Amino acid sequence: MIPVKGYAAQNAQTDLAPWNFERREVGPHDVQFEILYCGVCHSDLHQIKDEWGGSIFPMVPGHEIVGKVVKVGDHVKKFKIGDLAGTGCLVDSCRVCKNCQDGLEQYCTNGHSQTYNGVEQDKVTPTYGGYSNSIVVHEDFVLQISEKLDLAAVAPLLCAGITTYSPLKHWKVGKGHKLAVLGLGGLGHMAVKFGVAFGAEVTVLSTSPKKEEDAKKLGAHHFVVTSDEEQVKAVAGTFDFILDTVSADHDLNLYLSLLATNGVHICVGVPPTPAQLYAFSLIGGRKSLVGSMIGGLPETQEMLDYCAEHNIVSDIELIDIKDIYAAYERMTKGDVRYRFVIDLATL
Amino acid sequence: MIPVKGYAAQNAQTDLAPWNFERREVGPHDVQFEILYCGVCHSDLHQIKDEWGGSIFPMVPGHEIVGKVVKVGDHVKKFKIGDLAGTGCLVDSCRVCKNCQDGLEQYCTNGHSQTYNGVEQDKVTPTYGGYSNSIVVHEDFVLQISEKLDLAAVAPLLCAGITTYSPLKHWKVGKGHKLAVLGLGGLGHMAVKFGVAFGAEVTVLSTSPKKEEDAKKLGAHHFVVTSDEEQVKAVAGTFDFILDTVSADHDLNLYLSLLATNGVHICVGVPPTPAQLYAFSLIGGRKSLVGSMIGGLPETQEMLDYCAEHNIVSDIELIDIKDIYAAYERMTKGDVRYRFVIDLATL
Repeated sequence: MIPVKGYAAQNAQTDLAPWNFERREVGPHDVQFEILYCGVCHSDLHQIKDEWGGSIFPMVPGHEIVGKVVKVGDHVKKFKIGDLAGTGCLVDSCRVCKNCQDGLEQYCTNGHSQTYNGVEQDKVTPTYGGYSNSIVVHEDFVLQISEKLDLAAVAPLLCAGITTYSPLKHWKVGKGHKLAVLGLGGLGHMAVKFGVAFGAEVTVLSTSPKKEEDAKKLGAHHFVVTSDEEQVKAVAGTFDFILDTVSADHDLNLYLSLLATNGVHICVGVPPTPAQLYAFSLIGGRKSLVGSMIGGLPETQEMLDYCAEHNIVSDIELIDIKDIYAAYERMTKGDVRYRFVIDLATL
Repeated sequence: MIPVKGYAAQNAQTDLAPWNFERREVGPHDVQFEILYCGVCHSDLHQIKDEWGGSIFPMVPGHEIVGKVVKVGDHVKKFKIGDLAGTGCLVDSCRVCKNCQDGLEQYCTNGHSQTYNGVEQDKVTPTYGGYSNSIVVHEDFVLQISEKLDLAAVAPLLCAGITTYSPLKHWKVGKGHKLAVLGLGGLGHMAVKFGVAFGAEVTVLSTSPKKEEDAKKLGAHHFVVTSDEEQVKAVAGTFDFILDTVSADHDLNLYLSLLATNGVHICVGVPPTPAQLYAFSLIGGRKSLVGSMIGGLPETQEMLDYCAEHNIVSDIELIDIKDIYAAYERMTKGDVRYRFVIDLATL
C-alpha cells in the first residue's frame, strides 16, 4: 500500500484535520499522481457535515484534483511519468451499462464510484479525495491536462467547469441564443465563460448588485439584479435558456416566466427542499425544466481540450490548506471570486 | 346580429340552462357553421364553477366544436356552404407576435381569444362556446374536416386530440421509443392512439386495474397499475417519454424515476396545487419535465388530416344536452369511455 497524507473529517461533528492513510498499489491500468492543487466545492462542506445523509467517515474531501504523474501501471498507454493529470468527481463506474458504454459514466445505472465519500466498484473499499498529496486512479478516469494553462486554475474545471459545459453542449446553446446564468459563484462564473465562448448573448441574474462589474469582466453582456422587480419584469419572456447554478431554495416559477416560448431552464444545483412547481409555468409556453449532473469522461476531456484551445480557466483564490475553514466560511457567504483552490504544497 | 340558442351558466352558483344570445353578423372573412356536435372537456366544468378564477358570465362552454357551414363571408376562400367545419380552443389571436407568425397561436404573447370564457381581440366582446346551435368564426380559426370520419367522434380531436398529438410530434416520439401514457381518460386515450400510430411502444400507467382491457383494445402494448408497487418498480428507469394527462395532484418525482436517462416527462394537465419537485429527480439522469398546451392552427389542421388518413377518432358517448350534469358527474369519477359529446340536435 502507498502511504498518503491528507486532511480528513473523522465524523460529522469534528473539523477536518491531518490524517495519514493508504492508497492501493499502482495496478497495471492505474496512474498515480502527486496532487498539486485541489478545488474547494460547496459539496465538500455539505458532505463532511453529513448534510445530505449517508456520509462515509473518515472522509477526505476534494474532487477537483490536478497534479503530476509519478507512477504508471504496465498497461497504461495514455500517461507517462511527469505528465499533468486530473481527476474529477468520478474514479470508476461499472463500465458495462448502456450509459457507461455511451460515455455517460455520471449516470451509471449500477452506481459509479465517487472520488470521495464513495466506494470503489467492489462496493466496499472507501474512496478518498483530493485534500491529500497523492492519488491512484484507473487511467480511464484520469484526464489529460495541457501544459498551456495555469494548473491551479484548471482544478475547478473538473467539477464547476464540466457541470456547466456539459448542459450547454447537450442543449446546443450558442450563437443566436439568449442565455441567462442564474447565480454568479463557482459554477456561474464558468457558465458565463462557456456561454460567451459558445457565442450566446449572456445575461447574469444575481441577487448581488455588486457582482455586475465582475459579470461584465467575465464577458457577460447584461446584468439583472433579481431583487429589483422592474429589472426582472423587463426581461420576462426573453431567454432561450437559463442555466441555474443556485443550490439555495428559489422560486422556479419566477425564473420560468423569464423564458421565451420553448425556453429551457437547466438545473445543476440541488436546493435543500423541493421546489413548488405550477404546471402552468411549463405549459404556458411549451417550456422545459431539465437537470444535468457533471459530465462523462469523454466530455470532460473534450472540455479540458476546449479550455486549452480557448485559454479558459477558473478565476481562483489559492489557499493554504490550514485556512480551509476560513475559505468555507467565505464560500458559504458567496464571498469568493470564484473558486478556492488548495495548494497541496502547504499540506 | 344572429340569434343563437345555447346552454349557459349565468354565474358560478347556478347550473347551465337554456339561454338565447346573439353572435356577430358574418363578416367578409367569417364562416358561420351550424354546430352539430360539441365535446365535453373537464375544463368546461372547472370554468362554469369558476374554479380557476376570473370566469366571465354568462358562460356558454364548449371548445370541441364541429358542424356544417351555413354561410361564408365574401372573402372566404377555404370554405363553402355545406362543408364540414370545426373550431377548437381558440377563435382568434393577435396574429402579429412571433408565436402567431410561427403558427403557435396557443402561445400568442398578446393574448389569444379563447373560444369561450374569453374575449375577442377587441378585449371587450365576450366569446361563447359550443354548447349552442351556431357559431361565427374568422376562417383562419376554422378547421377543415374530412367527410370520411364519424363527425361526432371528431369533435374531441379539437382539444383532447391536438393536446396529445402536438407534444408527441414536437418531441418526435415514435419508432424505437418507449412511451408511457399516464392516465387513461379523454386525453390519455387519444395519447395511446397517437403513440401507437407513431410507432412507439406504449404503456398505460393507470390507478384503475379495470382499464387494462380498454388500454389493450386502444392499442397499448403494456399496462401498469400505479398503485401496485411491484409493477411500478419493474418499469423504473425504462421510459423515454411519459405523456402525463393527469390533472389531479400526483407525485412527479415518482414518475420521473420511471424515465430512462435523457427521458422526457410531458405535462398537459394542470393539477390544482403546485407539484413538489426534487432537483435530483431531474439531475440524476439528465431528465426533462416539460409542458405543452393544445396546439396551433396549422398543427391542428395537420392532426385532423392525419386522423382522416389513419382513421383515428375519439371513443365517445353521445349525450342529450339535458343530460349534461349526469355526464359531468360521471366524468368527474373518470367513468366515461372516453369522451362525452353533446348532440346539439337535442338542444
